Amino acid sequence: MSSVSDGARRYARAQANAERFLGELFEFLRIPSLSGDPAHAADVRRAAEWLAGNMRRLGLERVEIMETAGHPVVYGEWLGAGPDRPTVLVYGHYDVVPAALEDGWDTPPFEPVIKNGRIYARGATDDKGQLFIHIKALESYLKTAEAAPVNVKFLIEGEEEVSSPNLKPFIEAHLDLLKADVCVISDSSMPSMDKPAITHSLRGMCYIEVEVHGPKEDLHSGFFGGAVHNPALALVEILGALYNPDHTIAVPGFYDDVVPLTPAEREMIARNELSEAQLKRITGVPAAWGDASYTLRERVSARPTLDINGLWSGWSGPGPKTIIPAKAGAKLSSRLVANQTPEKIFKLLKARIEALAPPTVRVEVRLLTSGYPALIPFDLPEMQAAVRAYERGWGATPTFVRGGGSIPIVADIYALMRIPVVMMGYGLDDDGLHAPNESYSVEMFQRGIETAIVYLEELARLERQA
Amino acid sequence: MSSVSDGARRYARAQANAERFLGELFEFLRIPSLSGDPAHAADVRRAAEWLAGNMRRLGLERVEIMETAGHPVVYGEWLGAGPDRPTVLVYGHYDVVPAALEDGWDTPPFEPVIKNGRIYARGATDDKGQLFIHIKALESYLKTAEAAPVNVKFLIEGEEEVSSPNLKPFIEAHLDLLKADVCVISDSSMPSMDKPAITHSLRGMCYIEVEVHGPKEDLHSGFFGGAVHNPALALVEILGALYNPDHTIAVPGFYDDVVPLTPAEREMIARNELSEAQLKRITGVPAAWGDASYTLRERVSARPTLDINGLWSGWSGPGPKTIIPAKAGAKLSSRLVANQTPEKIFKLLKARIEALAPPTVRVEVRLLTSGYPALIPFDLPEMQAAVRAYERGWGATPTFVRGGGSIPIVADIYALMRIPVVMMGYGLDDDGLHAPNESYSVEMFQRGIETAIVYLEELARLERQA
Repeated sequence: MSSVSDGARRYARAQANAERFLGELFEFLRIPSLSGDPAHAADVRRAAEWLAGNMRRLGLERVEIMETAGHPVVYGEWLGAGPDRPTVLVYGHYDVVPAALEDGWDTPPFEPVIKNGRIYARGATDDKGQLFIHIKALESYLKTAEAAPVNVKFLIEGEEEVSSPNLKPFIEAHLDLLKADVCVISDSSMPSMDKPAITHSLRGMCYIEVEVHGPKEDLHSGFFGGAVHNPALALVEILGALYNPDHTIAVPGFYDDVVPLTPAEREMIARNELSEAQLKRITGVPAAWGDASYTLRERVSARPTLDINGLWSGWSGPGPKTIIPAKAGAKLSSRLVANQTPEKIFKLLKARIEALAPPTVRVEVRLLTSGYPALIPFDLPEMQAAVRAYERGWGATPTFVRGGGSIPIVADIYALMRIPVVMMGYGLDDDGLHAPNESYSVEMFQRGIETAIVYLEELARLERQA
Repeated sequence: MSSVSDGARRYARAQANAERFLGELFEFLRIPSLSGDPAHAADVRRAAEWLAGNMRRLGLERVEIMETAGHPVVYGEWLGAGPDRPTVLVYGHYDVVPAALEDGWDTPPFEPVIKNGRIYARGATDDKGQLFIHIKALESYLKTAEAAPVNVKFLIEGEEEVSSPNLKPFIEAHLDLLKADVCVISDSSMPSMDKPAITHSLRGMCYIEVEVHGPKEDLHSGFFGGAVHNPALALVEILGALYNPDHTIAVPGFYDDVVPLTPAEREMIARNELSEAQLKRITGVPAAWGDASYTLRERVSARPTLDINGLWSGWSGPGPKTIIPAKAGAKLSSRLVANQTPEKIFKLLKARIEALAPPTVRVEVRLLTSGYPALIPFDLPEMQAAVRAYERGWGATPTFVRGGGSIPIVADIYALMRIPVVMMGYGLDDDGLHAPNESYSVEMFQRGIETAIVYLEELARLERQA
């Protein structure tokens, strides 16, 4: 059976095009678009402009950099398939998390290089490389058939890594502009190249900062040690009390709204096993950890967590400094699952921490960012179309998985636009996103484009059958 | 009764001299002689050279910058009183702890200024200002009577703030050169201007660094959160377990060698009361803390401690970063009292921390610095001569106090040279040493010089009586 996608796939596979696609991606990756660092605001905008330029060149009818209260959204649309054809909304993000050579990178994080078939750069897999797949898939249609089988809209934001504070209002204000039948997102991963996966669930987020204040300034530990509650110790005591000995979270009410896993769900999760050996190989930890009532895969995807993301107090430079620090702080984040809400979890965490705070110090708890968890049924036709796209475009049947990470906007799109969100992740679990030496498989990038091409066709067929 | 000290005291009081002394001290304070930071090694040497130059100009017979395996010792001597007169060894240190404007200083820490009769600069009280008192006291004799009543040797080191790693070997190698009848040190404080104090006890030190290693690099907390023991949490759990609920230290054997306080000692300590109101006023803490079996003054001077001096892990910059940190670390130090030894305490701490380390992480414990506690009888003649020096030179009878800080070399001098060590502290408890806005009273500096002048005379008289 020949189809319009065959020509587009040949175009994407042609060596000259494949090399040019990579060259363009490298240009994109060289821009340090750190959304969380005000010093990089101009770089974030530069990334938006670069992306808009690339989209304009491939023949989109309308490309705009649209302002928000924070970093801009890049919007693009090709509606040439006509109003009787379905419209797919591609969501992605062009911003990245911080990266510095001294964090342990082997090569500078914003100078992409290919080693052993992998692209090393911050943002290579999260999400510049993955979002670029959809742009190049549309290009492949437009440069061969001069049309794609469905209408395509792009909504590429610049604030995903700071939990998208302005995207929900943006969507609410532009529901007509963004109107679509299905949303596709590539910002997740598969366990291995031969096991593609569609993510139908994501964890939410409640990210807080705790600061403990003791003396008005650092004290000489010889003069006051023994009579002053060391703020670092007070912090240690508070944080320690947030966990039970069985590694569950000791915050009253924390688990109250968690939807229990059914035996069927647990069986599906078990198909995508995460063994202790795998976990140790990927992460380098000496042993697994966590709530023994759940498998490792359940712990990292279907159960809520509380992690310490940062800790600071006093002197961390070389040599000794004999002080009682004036203050101590921590960043803590909870990954949430359906039906927990970040508002309630923040309230519970804050109340618990304040209840634990002794009268010898003063404790502050602040919410930094939050996001809802998402749980999308996997029997929807748009989900099943994605299964066929993988079978034809990738060459393997995908499994449905729960993602452990958070793309807060997924829950928002699902709720606000009332359309299915299909997460076709073209990353690998060990791409090292958010870590030093983040990397992305060149083969993944190329096969991803082909699968994305086929998915547009499968969506068109689906609607024709409907 | 007129004495040779009267002329010297008039010299020190003369306005032109007093102003010049301050000007010279300012030059000394401007040199950022941070002994713990390799980047400041040249500054440390510059401070030694400045000090040697100042000592040469006032007429010392021999001044040398003597090399050690680390920062040099400044040695100076004036032996003009002759071999039948006693010799006093003045110990001090010209190095300082780190200081940076952004730590909360109102003015740059190495640009001394006088505000409200106080000199603001790193090292103003610890110990540049205090050691300079003895140099200016000797100058006052040499420029008036052309002689001092006793021989004087100076041993001024540059590594006190990193626990004097090379001073003990230096003393052992130069016992003849340093030979003296008494050692005087001004590197401690009095509760208030009208309550001078002689320190007869100091706490020792066992300073360690603990590092917890988990994954080989930072992990995305969404992908592994729940199945990997967060190293920051593991550190929190270990540190928390080092303390009992009553704020005593939960390290088996920690208190075994502590010499119990006698009722008489407790009564003497009580004369120098530290009330909770005072503690709150000086430090700004909302409430006192510690082992309720002991008074606040006992806790900060006569009891051993364990303080967290620094804590670090993961992300401490602005905004959120959703990682499981690869590692977490802490600096911890224990102030020791007679007869604890740093060797044994390190062994106990290390064993306890290693026993607490779970199999889910790898834990390292390193000794950074150590020092013995010192406890010197206060009925020695050289101690009583100091009492008379305060009565004549200062105008008040001093009390004997236990110092909570550590001058590790005090115990070494006492043990190696077998001479009394008399700690005449010319600081105030709230000078803020080791903290931002360290300051030093100009009046204290001037009255200190006069008292130091009288002490040399009292020592001469003492020996003549003997």
